Amino acid sequence: MTVMPRIGPLFTDLYELTMAASYFDNQVVSDATFSVFVRDTFRRNYFVAVGLEDVLRELEGFHFSAEELDYLRKTGLFSEAFIAYLKDLHFTGTIYALPEGTLFFPEEPILEVTAPLIESQIIETFILNTIGFQTNVASKGARCVYAANGRPLVDFSLRRTQGQDAGLKVARSTFLVGFSGTSNVLAGKQFDLPVSGTMAHSYISAFSREIDAFSAFAETFPESSVFLIDTYDTLEGARNAAKVALDMQARGHALLGVRLDSGDMVDLSQQVRKILDTAGLPEVKIYASSGFDEFEIIDILTQNAKIDAFGIGTKVGVSADVPYLDIVYKLVRFNQRNIRKMSARKITLAGEKQVFRRVDGNGMLKEDVIGLRDDVIDNGEPLLVRVMENGRSVGPYPALPDIQARFKANFACLPEGFKSILNRRRFTVKLSERLKDVQQHTGKAQ
Amino acid sequence: MTVMPRIGPLFTDLYELTMAASYFDNQVVSDATFSVFVRDTFRRNYFVAVGLEDVLRELEGFHFSAEELDYLRKTGLFSEAFIAYLKDLHFTGTIYALPEGTLFFPEEPILEVTAPLIESQIIETFILNTIGFQTNVASKGARCVYAANGRPLVDFSLRRTQGQDAGLKVARSTFLVGFSGTSNVLAGKQFDLPVSGTMAHSYISAFSREIDAFSAFAETFPESSVFLIDTYDTLEGARNAAKVALDMQARGHALLGVRLDSGDMVDLSQQVRKILDTAGLPEVKIYASSGFDEFEIIDILTQNAKIDAFGIGTKVGVSADVPYLDIVYKLVRFNQRNIRKMSARKITLAGEKQVFRRVDGNGMLKEDVIGLRDDVIDNGEPLLVRVMENGRSVGPYPALPDIQARFKANFACLPEGFKSILNRRRFTVKLSERLKDVQQHTGKAQ
Repeated sequence: MTVMPRIGPLFTDLYELTMAASYFDNQVVSDATFSVFVRDTFRRNYFVAVGLEDVLRELEGFHFSAEELDYLRKTGLFSEAFIAYLKDLHFTGTIYALPEGTLFFPEEPILEVTAPLIESQIIETFILNTIGFQTNVASKGARCVYAANGRPLVDFSLRRTQGQDAGLKVARSTFLVGFSGTSNVLAGKQFDLPVSGTMAHSYISAFSREIDAFSAFAETFPESSVFLIDTYDTLEGARNAAKVALDMQARGHALLGVRLDSGDMVDLSQQVRKILDTAGLPEVKIYASSGFDEFEIIDILTQNAKIDAFGIGTKVGVSADVPYLDIVYKLVRFNQRNIRKMSARKITLAGEKQVFRRVDGNGMLKEDVIGLRDDVIDNGEPLLVRVMENGRSVGPYPALPDIQARFKANFACLPEGFKSILNRRRFTVKLSERLKDVQQHTGKAQ
Repeated sequence: MTVMPRIGPLFTDLYELTMAASYFDNQVVSDATFSVFVRDTFRRNYFVAVGLEDVLRELEGFHFSAEELDYLRKTGLFSEAFIAYLKDLHFTGTIYALPEGTLFFPEEPILEVTAPLIESQIIETFILNTIGFQTNVASKGARCVYAANGRPLVDFSLRRTQGQDAGLKVARSTFLVGFSGTSNVLAGKQFDLPVSGTMAHSYISAFSREIDAFSAFAETFPESSVFLIDTYDTLEGARNAAKVALDMQARGHALLGVRLDSGDMVDLSQQVRKILDTAGLPEVKIYASSGFDEFEIIDILTQNAKIDAFGIGTKVGVSADVPYLDIVYKLVRFNQRNIRKMSARKITLAGEKQVFRRVDGNGMLKEDVIGLRDDVIDNGEPLLVRVMENGRSVGPYPALPDIQARFKANFACLPEGFKSILNRRRFTVKLSERLKDVQQHTGKAQ
């Protein structure tokens, strides 16, 4: 199953190619290591690494097609010698990365690439685009799963994601952190995810009476109907739904649930619950959609809303409160020397690194230590795994349920305080002595 | 030139297909009209319609492939009769829409589809996804162009857009509202846009001294170099750039500019300008990047920053302050009767509509009138154009520079007050008498 089709090496900022052309002219071609991390803007307590499979699949097939080279030639910026060089270029590097589903914290390397400078440089834009968005949405989704406290969540975001593959990536990323499925049919097909969805307001409007719409839908889907009950009057809608549900029961079928999509979710859900219970339909579930994210979920659940499952749309699909991460791709080692760039409030840790995780006696996360790649840290489990060697992916890609399980296991070990939706709290991330030493002895290059 | 490859009919929420299946079973198949509009959340004074070409191209080729039908069969939700029906389905409808580049306001229809109910229903998700994001980014981009007051802007957002086609769509949408180009090479190829970009910090770090990096780059790009001068110390960087620029002059070449990417842009740009001027290099331009959007631009220009051009990245690429629009697709007419849905604070205008624009004696926009499609409004120019008939696109797709010109002409007629970056102001949008009448006589369906 292909996660995303090839996007190709022109999916890049032009400067990656102009730098490459100049490296080529000046034969600046030694091995370079770049490190990917999220700067600490303190907007999230934790992140979930997602997007690695897309990165590795693209890099395995990395090459310039004749058509792509023709376009570069036409820009007039590049020499024939450089274009001939690109024609034969493949990615031959090594990558260490956090497996998808791994919990991590700001400033920790989530991926490090080592390859000849031109190769490692020109993949920057693609890697940031691929890892950044998926990691961001997964992290927001994880907060929703926690807020919903066991209630199923379904991704409903497709109509308002920022483009097409964003929609696919949201479905996959939210599934990996525990959503039960998506409304996105293409994502269902592509990633083998459970798909769900039943009716919109327009369906109700296309019939003369709401109850006729419900009955007609139950004819087509006698075992998998969820009636949308807020098109006219939600309580009247609940009573109509109850009538049709009892008809369905009489024929040996069952209504799965009703959905609320507007209005006061607390009050309406409680009243609808009563209507359904009074009608002898305690098993009919109440679904809610309409602007939910982790904040809205905890708000209405705190007020005792009677919601059994949520459709989660736009606000998570675009990660509305944090629509981008300060994710960067920084040169940390070149030609056998460590590289450090320090500008105002922006620090990059020089050297090839590893993240070591320490847990307490109960297996709960205690602290992370960022060290050099070859550090040995007492009781520290190394998190970055060698996932690509000589441009080939190491081992098979994990199945989505396995990634989901990894995230679940990681999250179970996160102390409760860091799971808070409303409070910001910094997990302890230390630097190893050897890594500190490298920073002190890596002067500015000039 | 294909704007986007086919995405196919599975790019949809499942409920579009379950509704369709039930319409099919119940033979609810009359013509329906759906209207697309942005609800008035008062976050933007105006919007720019973008995305229509993608919609029309996809609908012209709309069909279910054998593989797509196989997937639907495997879900177990659909009858063989319905799948056989989908096999032969094409889009046969009519679409009225605002041409790309048209300025519009909340609640105004930007696109209306009329087609047999199943056809018009199942394209909802695709249309909202396609029009919503591009319109949102174009609208944000237009604000940046206004704020920059004649200074060129270049899209630098690709590394942090929400996925791959978001990156392409940002490049195209921002160009349509007046950006001069993009760093996105693939967008340059796909849409024939000017591409630009020169070097990153890693380029400087790969050389022992900053000035060596500048000289090496100038060798490769003697006429198109912009030196990034903030890797170590911005003022020292400016002095190094000046030295290399004078060397370049001596050889008959010229440095285009220097770029600032961090620090206090006002103070640094003024000092760098002085260094360059003192060196006899008044023609060397100062480019700025680093977190710019319309708010940052007016902030530093108000303080007299000496910036000649801006690289515009993440905040515009994800429309960070307004990351989604409340864009909806609502049934407004079905089987010869107008449809109106009113729920709390959400109004949908029944009927097939047209937007009429009135200007004052100087050609400046005065007010818009939303009327019925066949209304005749004194001095009102109808804005919605019939762009698709019987599932075929009407006329050729406009070239991007023509769309850019349309936007520019539209924007020139917008009274200054509505262009404000900081103040919200509602443009007058009225309803015609006949449209009001239809609303009053369209009761609730029950």
